[in-house]
Amino acid sequence: MTEANPLHHIDALEAGETWTTDVVVIGAGPVGLFSVFELGLLDIKCHLIDILDKVGGQCAELYPEKPIYDIPAWPIISGDDLTKRLLEQIHPFGAKYHLGEMAVAVRKIEDGEHEGLWEVTTDQQTVVRAKSIVIAAGGGSFQPKKPPIPGIDGFENLGAGLGVHYAVRKMEAFRDKEIVISGGGDSALDWVLNLQPIAKRVTLIHRRDDFRAAPHSVAKMRELVAAGEMNLVIAQATALKGETGHFLESVAIEDSDGNASHLKADAFLPFFGLTMKLGPVAEFGLNLHENLIPVDTEKFETSTKGIFAIGDINHYPGKLKLILSGFHEAALMAQQAFRYVYPDKKLRFQYTTSSSELQKKMGVK
Amino acid sequence: MTEANPLHHIDALEAGETWTTDVVVIGAGPVGLFSVFELGLLDIKCHLIDILDKVGGQCAELYPEKPIYDIPAWPIISGDDLTKRLLEQIHPFGAKYHLGEMAVAVRKIEDGEHEGLWEVTTDQQTVVRAKSIVIAAGGGSFQPKKPPIPGIDGFENLGAGLGVHYAVRKMEAFRDKEIVISGGGDSALDWVLNLQPIAKRVTLIHRRDDFRAAPHSVAKMRELVAAGEMNLVIAQATALKGETGHFLESVAIEDSDGNASHLKADAFLPFFGLTMKLGPVAEFGLNLHENLIPVDTEKFETSTKGIFAIGDINHYPGKLKLILSGFHEAALMAQQAFRYVYPDKKLRFQYTTSSSELQKKMGVK
Repeated sequence: MTEANPLHHIDALEAGETWTTDVVVIGAGPVGLFSVFELGLLDIKCHLIDILDKVGGQCAELYPEKPIYDIPAWPIISGDDLTKRLLEQIHPFGAKYHLGEMAVAVRKIEDGEHEGLWEVTTDQQTVVRAKSIVIAAGGGSFQPKKPPIPGIDGFENLGAGLGVHYAVRKMEAFRDKEIVISGGGDSALDWVLNLQPIAKRVTLIHRRDDFRAAPHSVAKMRELVAAGEMNLVIAQATALKGETGHFLESVAIEDSDGNASHLKADAFLPFFGLTMKLGPVAEFGLNLHENLIPVDTEKFETSTKGIFAIGDINHYPGKLKLILSGFHEAALMAQQAFRYVYPDKKLRFQYTTSSSELQKKMGVK
Repeated sequence: MTEANPLHHIDALEAGETWTTDVVVIGAGPVGLFSVFELGLLDIKCHLIDILDKVGGQCAELYPEKPIYDIPAWPIISGDDLTKRLLEQIHPFGAKYHLGEMAVAVRKIEDGEHEGLWEVTTDQQTVVRAKSIVIAAGGGSFQPKKPPIPGIDGFENLGAGLGVHYAVRKMEAFRDKEIVISGGGDSALDWVLNLQPIAKRVTLIHRRDDFRAAPHSVAKMRELVAAGEMNLVIAQATALKGETGHFLESVAIEDSDGNASHLKADAFLPFFGLTMKLGPVAEFGLNLHENLIPVDTEKFETSTKGIFAIGDINHYPGKLKLILSGFHEAALMAQQAFRYVYPDKKLRFQYTTSSSELQKKMGVK
């Protein structure tokens, strides 16, 4: 998927494996990323899980190019540049990334070899075991907005490359398929351009002949249409035909004059943007307060010992949902996480400016 | 004094005047500077007071060129660059600076026109009245290390340009004077070079013929010595001669072989570095805990309502003396300061990324 998201060269791990590490961080937005730095200074290794297929969280998804003015010592910085700078800063600590995966379950392992460890499972059957969990999930999970098509749920989960998909996990699954993509933004256009070379046929449908996507993507799409290598139809999807729970056959569409027709389709990919929901975090067994996770202000630990919450998702008296507050919370969290990861070691607080030991960890020469 | 400290083009106010503003910030280190930003977003004007003759606090004084690694999204930044970036960020808010002045007393005005305001007085007889006070004084006051010369105190406070001085407040006071400067670092060499053109004679004394100051300053000094325009004596000051409390006549010196002599002097300027002391903050009537000021973690307010403490000088459970924590503390402090400055207004929390009102304040076009 690097073609569509070339921004941050992150090698995400393959889904479906089982891993053991020191700390698992749920959320790879700016606060999740900075926690890698603060944990890394204390020799704590971590894995990050994010539902997006890139790091940066809201900064990457909602305002990659929009300026942010209140990052201290950055009079102006884009969400994208902030993400890049943080990646550079945490690079020495070698965190591992599970992207495009949603953490769906958290449990403490009660017996066996890994007794006492936490276990986080994703919707892609990845399992990460760790001594501590840091929830840095911002507003929760970004989830796709579904188009208002009756019965659309019945065509989800038909398998790789078949039926309805709101994201592309493995491009190869769409090889030689008839694909209908709906939407007018960057995601729709990016996936049109990425899947067109391998699909049997790609048809883009959009309600009007005007696209919000990057101009060069739109131009490329129009070239392909002019060359007869894909279709563009100005219409909206109104229904899905096929056998619910088994296969998709076609997408029923209607243009602005009310003319109806059908497009043959193995797969239908609507890209209608993302919405933020608390999501599975609500099922982790933590105390919640108005969809936020209450924490103390000493360690930013939740009601469950060993599970921390930092950034926009937590709550305490005075809380402001500012990235700069998440950075502070990450630093104080790391001190307590150290106690779970190294229960027998004594923590000695050191400064990066003066400690050659810390500088070695950061790769300073 | 801009010749010696050309780094940050700050127009400091003349000492000895009386001012009225919204908030007075004691300390112009990185945390004091960033509080200008957070207060400014809420339309709160401020004056900053710092004992150093430049802004930046420890970053400027102790490690202007030393790299800092733990400012979020700055993989590496010097204390000097951090200060410059913060100055750029707060520029739109027009803070006023009182530099080279030590805040020595704090009181609440009990009656008259300014009843209910706080009043901060400096050792230079500057008075700043405000609705709230923010103490961002780091480790306290930087104070000069005094050379171990018996009775040196008796030659302090003899007036501008006369006797012993540990800092230069007004260069003009030293015109046509016989000056002995002692030290081997940047401050000593900078003031040698700055005062040499206007003094009757400058003599630099240092215990060995080896200087820690910037090489180009050392080279310039040696040129002046070679040209006979100043003196360099490798020796240490052992005593001061003159009339205690009235005038200085000469500095007694001794070289490494034990040879003693005298240098005629109207003024003696030892630059032996600075040391950090809590200083007058201890006399402000606040509760203290091991030379730190306890605060809550919601508003970072001290035991005295209306007086806040942020950055290295405060204490609360989990406290880490990190610049990034001071930034967070400044943001939360500003919310409560707003209530003192605008008791009748309702505070509406807005984001710089999305609020055109805030962007206007920041001068975004």
